[in-house]
Amino acid sequence: MDAMVTGGKAMVADLRRLFADVRNHSEALAASLSAEDQALQSMPDASPVKWHLAHTTWFFEQFVLRATLPDYDVFDADFGFLFNSYYEAVGPRHARVARGMITRPSAAQVGDYRAYVNAAMQDLLAEGRVEIADLVVLGLNHEQQHQELLITDITHAFAQNPLLPVAIPGWRMPVHAGDGEVAWVAFAGGLVEIGYRGEEFHFDNEAPRHQVWLAPYALANQLVTCATMLDFIADGGYRTPSLWMADGWAQVQAQGWSAPLYWRQSGDQWLGFGPGGSAPLDPSAPVAHISWYEADALARWAGARLPTEPEWEAAYGHPRLAEMTGSVWQWTESAYRPYPGFRPVAGAIGEYNGKFMINQMVLRGSSAATPAGHGRASYRNFFHPDKRWQFSGLRLARDC
Amino acid sequence: MDAMVTGGKAMVADLRRLFADVRNHSEALAASLSAEDQALQSMPDASPVKWHLAHTTWFFEQFVLRATLPDYDVFDADFGFLFNSYYEAVGPRHARVARGMITRPSAAQVGDYRAYVNAAMQDLLAEGRVEIADLVVLGLNHEQQHQELLITDITHAFAQNPLLPVAIPGWRMPVHAGDGEVAWVAFAGGLVEIGYRGEEFHFDNEAPRHQVWLAPYALANQLVTCATMLDFIADGGYRTPSLWMADGWAQVQAQGWSAPLYWRQSGDQWLGFGPGGSAPLDPSAPVAHISWYEADALARWAGARLPTEPEWEAAYGHPRLAEMTGSVWQWTESAYRPYPGFRPVAGAIGEYNGKFMINQMVLRGSSAATPAGHGRASYRNFFHPDKRWQFSGLRLARDC
Amino acid sequence: MDAMVTGGKAMVADLRRLFADVRNHSEALAASLSAEDQALQSMPDASPVKWHLAHTTWFFEQFVLRATLPDYDVFDADFGFLFNSYYEAVGPRHARVARGMITRPSAAQVGDYRAYVNAAMQDLLAEGRVEIADLVVLGLNHEQQHQELLITDITHAFAQNPLLPVAIPGWRMPVHAGDGEVAWVAFAGGLVEIGYRGEEFHFDNEAPRHQVWLAPYALANQLVTCATMLDFIADGGYRTPSLWMADGWAQVQAQGWSAPLYWRQSGDQWLGFGPGGSAPLDPSAPVAHISWYEADALARWAGARLPTEPEWEAAYGHPRLAEMTGSVWQWTESAYRPYPGFRPVAGAIGEYNGKFMINQMVLRGSSAATPAGHGRASYRNFFHPDKRWQFSGLRLARDC
Amino acid sequence: MDAMVTGGKAMVADLRRLFADVRNHSEALAASLSAEDQALQSMPDASPVKWHLAHTTWFFEQFVLRATLPDYDVFDADFGFLFNSYYEAVGPRHARVARGMITRPSAAQVGDYRAYVNAAMQDLLAEGRVEIADLVVLGLNHEQQHQELLITDITHAFAQNPLLPVAIPGWRMPVHAGDGEVAWVAFAGGLVEIGYRGEEFHFDNEAPRHQVWLAPYALANQLVTCATMLDFIADGGYRTPSLWMADGWAQVQAQGWSAPLYWRQSGDQWLGFGPGGSAPLDPSAPVAHISWYEADALARWAGARLPTEPEWEAAYGHPRLAEMTGSVWQWTESAYRPYPGFRPVAGAIGEYNGKFMINQMVLRGSSAATPAGHGRASYRNFFHPDKRWQFSGLRLARDC
Repeated sequence: MDAMVTGGKAMVADLRRLFADVRNHSEALAASLSAEDQALQSMPDASPVKWHLAHTTWFFEQFVLRATLPDYDVFDADFGFLFNSYYEAVGPRHARVARGMITRPSAAQVGDYRAYVNAAMQDLLAEGRVEIADLVVLGLNHEQQHQELLITDITHAFAQNPLLPVAIPGWRMPVHAGDGEVAWVAFAGGLVEIGYRGEEFHFDNEAPRHQVWLAPYALANQLVTCATMLDFIADGGYRTPSLWMADGWAQVQAQGWSAPLYWRQSGDQWLGFGPGGSAPLDPSAPVAHISWYEADALARWAGARLPTEPEWEAAYGHPRLAEMTGSVWQWTESAYRPYPGFRPVAGAIGEYNGKFMINQMVLRGSSAATPAGHGRASYRNFFHPDKRWQFSGLRLARDC
Repeated sequence: MDAMVTGGKAMVADLRRLFADVRNHSEALAASLSAEDQALQSMPDASPVKWHLAHTTWFFEQFVLRATLPDYDVFDADFGFLFNSYYEAVGPRHARVARGMITRPSAAQVGDYRAYVNAAMQDLLAEGRVEIADLVVLGLNHEQQHQELLITDITHAFAQNPLLPVAIPGWRMPVHAGDGEVAWVAFAGGLVEIGYRGEEFHFDNEAPRHQVWLAPYALANQLVTCATMLDFIADGGYRTPSLWMADGWAQVQAQGWSAPLYWRQSGDQWLGFGPGGSAPLDPSAPVAHISWYEADALARWAGARLPTEPEWEAAYGHPRLAEMTGSVWQWTESAYRPYPGFRPVAGAIGEYNGKFMINQMVLRGSSAATPAGHGRASYRNFFHPDKRWQFSGLRLARDC
Repeated sequence: MDAMVTGGKAMVADLRRLFADVRNHSEALAASLSAEDQALQSMPDASPVKWHLAHTTWFFEQFVLRATLPDYDVFDADFGFLFNSYYEAVGPRHARVARGMITRPSAAQVGDYRAYVNAAMQDLLAEGRVEIADLVVLGLNHEQQHQELLITDITHAFAQNPLLPVAIPGWRMPVHAGDGEVAWVAFAGGLVEIGYRGEEFHFDNEAPRHQVWLAPYALANQLVTCATMLDFIADGGYRTPSLWMADGWAQVQAQGWSAPLYWRQSGDQWLGFGPGGSAPLDPSAPVAHISWYEADALARWAGARLPTEPEWEAAYGHPRLAEMTGSVWQWTESAYRPYPGFRPVAGAIGEYNGKFMINQMVLRGSSAATPAGHGRASYRNFFHPDKRWQFSGLRLARDC
Repeated sequence: MDAMVTGGKAMVADLRRLFADVRNHSEALAASLSAEDQALQSMPDASPVKWHLAHTTWFFEQFVLRATLPDYDVFDADFGFLFNSYYEAVGPRHARVARGMITRPSAAQVGDYRAYVNAAMQDLLAEGRVEIADLVVLGLNHEQQHQELLITDITHAFAQNPLLPVAIPGWRMPVHAGDGEVAWVAFAGGLVEIGYRGEEFHFDNEAPRHQVWLAPYALANQLVTCATMLDFIADGGYRTPSLWMADGWAQVQAQGWSAPLYWRQSGDQWLGFGPGGSAPLDPSAPVAHISWYEADALARWAGARLPTEPEWEAAYGHPRLAEMTGSVWQWTESAYRPYPGFRPVAGAIGEYNGKFMINQMVLRGSSAATPAGHGRASYRNFFHPDKRWQFSGLRLARDC
């Protein structure tokens, strides 16, 4: 998940503080993780904490400092190779699956790298150059995306350790807004507009704003809860092929899925696992850590369906809809594809979003792990339909 | 690829002849194939010719004869297990990857099976029962879909044999309609309707008819040719990551793709392979046997894009658009998802299309291997984006 | 499994009849198999019946006819590529895993190929050339080895078909010689000689004859039976890691082994499967279709061990030892390695045995599927320790 | 690779100092490795440094302290699960492939664990109990084996890091004893005895001592050098199938082997990599990091062969044979199988060696990474024939 700015207008004066705040927050997330923890990669989809900290720094060094300052001395010439994520245009890079091999540079050296780049950035920002503002804002949004991945990746890694360590002490899911009674909120549909509108920062995949025709529909006023998932399990949902897409059913059988990721039974009790460690499952909490296949099957079992992207976005802001952001990402019916008229920007930055627009499904909203400011109406998150390690859940929809 | 009828109104009187024609055509396709050839399975995606001949027969036995005639004697009690494709509701079935193990029943016994079911069907049809007409029409459309797969599957199998046998003597691609000069045909967009409209047979995935809003767009008046693909190859298209989706680029590297499937170089000459055997490539012919990834990259290289489903369907019938059907299937921008309001029918028949509506991309039109009657405006074909063994090509589109 | 002659002295006059007998026997084995059956390959380790029939023919064409007759016209220039098994020195060849793709040439054409080469061979043999005798005898022994593989390969293939067809009508295991009471036959050991001695045909891996020092040991007078295997199963043998080599235990868990290959339970009854089809298990029959890992674990469970090659060979011919040949191959303790002083012969023929002398374990004796004349004292058969589709069983040994 | 004592007679008084020396040496090896480095696992065959440090400690806690002291308090109840290697009899254990997931307990906690167990062991040893001496000596030999693995495992891990870090500063291969001129040392063979003889510590797989008959043979007086390997490469050795075992040739092609592990070309120069980092290749040094397949092919190319185990052991001590120990392990012709009369000891300790006696080849001698005292005549090391990350090379042998 990466980013491209098209219309950032933040004042340069504010940028110095914003830059410091975002950068400090990344380090705060890693505060209770040892150097060993930070080097850990538990699967190809995930990256080490240290890699997130270095890659987001490389972004500023590569696209801002080196591009702007002819005399800039890179911190270490090897870091470009080690910490490029997927920018083909920038040159070769270390294999994604082998990010966990990089015990050197150490966590301490990555800390030095961050300090070095932070200082150079603050100096540059102090010059008040307007032309870099958009790119800096993009870099900060990019770093915020990696803050969420940092949380979900270390959570996945710690789930592989039989000791089930705590990644972020005190971390907990927000209290569920609903009272257990789902209500349907109806919308008339017709010709709606979706996509980003405004002058602030947004990612390229949110544009261009465009018109979509919708049939009448209704959305549930709250998210699907763990209690409902328990009912689904008790009703044999994971053993009933007619509830599943064929590819999903194949996954259920191949992976032996019988509950959301991180759920396990201890005697009669269900336990979950998250950044805050292991804890008894809260039935009233929104279900999380489910794949699109599970969300789709759960919706079908409930006699409903997932919302489409335009349905979700057009409904955003309705006062009766709770938990649209800040709890769990909500899988949609919509495949992740470019909007009509979508154009990636030129150069390496253009590789951010466009080239991933296949084989993935869109999630809307944001999660408890999402930094503030990413929970807007037009935000498009996306993952392959079998992925489960994000805070991914669902909201029900139906035709009217 | 399978089928479900929702509105067939064919007269029962005509059905007896139609039934005989479709059934005979399947056997005609296999006429020059030996019993050995008919048992061959070259990959999990493909099925033996004999299996296609038996499975389409089982469809009539299972869903028409057994469901209608209380005293019907099945031809062989084992055939339900062997020749069920994927209907979970009907019971267990032989593993798809092991269809090539079924040398017995023999091709001759499958021929007997076909004759037995044909006779029972003709007797039943002679009774003039109106209530089975829709199901019979569905079964015939289903068989026609398998006729196309029979051709593409045996072609793939024969491509594995160094002798490169001829599957269908005399088979050749239709002459290319274009003169090499591509022209753009513009459409105003706005609120259009797509989806099947009418009283004839159609598959469930073509319904319901619904409204879609389109921006102005243009379609190429003809298909992309092999000559253009040769230019793409010569221009390094298969070695340029910026032209590809990330998942596509990963496939190019993992599979070593450097040309469409079945293309090979012999000295300075390019050769192709098809149901009619090996032959020098015709540059003016539409390019075929490419994955969605290749179609997408080729369109990007050409400064264009693939059309969306609604764009293609709304343009259907325009007099300046050639080769909309009957040449090669045309990959679209659109992921294969249900139309708004889509509902599978109840029972096992409902498993036909709905459960495959994920991870696949839609192709529109029809190919030289498609039986007559499947080339309508609303027809939706679909394959995973890495599949290449169908007659799959592309038509360019662009924004206006 | 392939062959090299070093000392054949068969009279050329007898060779014509011998040649006809061996060649006819191959065709007799395939007599009840359809053309479809003969093209079937069920796993990379196995080959189609048709391939065996063609490959053994190619051997005579390649190494005898082409090497001897300057004017010989090959039957088909493509067959060298298609039917070479693994002779690197002869040139490129069709991939082993894709032998099942070769539906053409047809079974009938392979029959013509056999007739063509048979006629040329008989003409050549009629010339009475002494210098080809050894090579012809090698070719016939080679063909006999493939006769056994033909039986085990089609048996494996038919086991994948839910109909469990009969490959060889009337085929049955020989009656068990033992009375269920195992007796130990003791041997003093000391300096013994093993390896082929004589003037008749033998394979290169049986030579040179050499001395080996043995400690005193004893062999069981009969083979381990299915009844003993049933006791092993009932005693939890397949669930007890301490009975297994680590690599064997890994296989048990990965493959889910809980009984010999082809065994299955139907209610309270155990059924087996073989060339003669499916039948209730005979507890008094020698256990067959077990891997080296299972043989080793079974011996350990019985408080015994497998014999070494020299122990087995030095004991050969003792009147109290039953079932040394003609029932099931007997896994030994010995890894398949060259004898001291072993030298492959020069040229392509030298590739027969030497290059396989790693990662495999030796079996001694012969099986019910072995053609007459292969059951000699010095014969060395060999398979990887996880292979189960041969008629492989065991005889117990112990230290004295 | 693990260990079992059968005759240790070390004086208990000396054991306290020996225990401290061996234990301290493990920590010294890790002295320049960060906590991050110590948690790294680069492949399933290898283990993290921290795991080696903890597992060897668990061995003393599990088999000595807990078994001897009824009131012993384990350091941490979870460590038994985390740091058991493969002792099925002791209970379940953490998956080998996931050892790299264990960032907690930290390196510091493992250090505390070592100190805790060391103190308890020293207290116990101070009691002068004779009955634990053998087990303690076994534990120390076991730890020494892991010291060698610690070196080879971290070397493999660092080879995955583009920065090619130094694992052990100042580490270097011993100077090559030979002068480049290979001489053959002849041995008469006949009835020899091999296997451990004496009253000191040895592993169970070295016993029982037994007689073997050998034909006359000769061994090269020195090891094969990198210069010879360069000649092999230049002569197309890695591209010549006739030099290879079939399984070896398959590996060459599948893995793309074209030189020993860790060798790479930089312009005209060959570079190697080891515990001391990257350095230009020394042509006079013994070749290391080759698989059995490569050693076997290299010997064949040189017109020689590998020695057998008995040949090597019977020749041990001859004054003209250099580099028998302390340089690189020497692959032999011999498969790793039990000696005649071999019996594992009872209980969990009996799982050390016996269950690995299949699919591996024996190496003799010792390497520059082997702790002192493991280089005796009867020592048997063993790895699968495709493994390359040990200090494995070869000495030539031939028949006389």
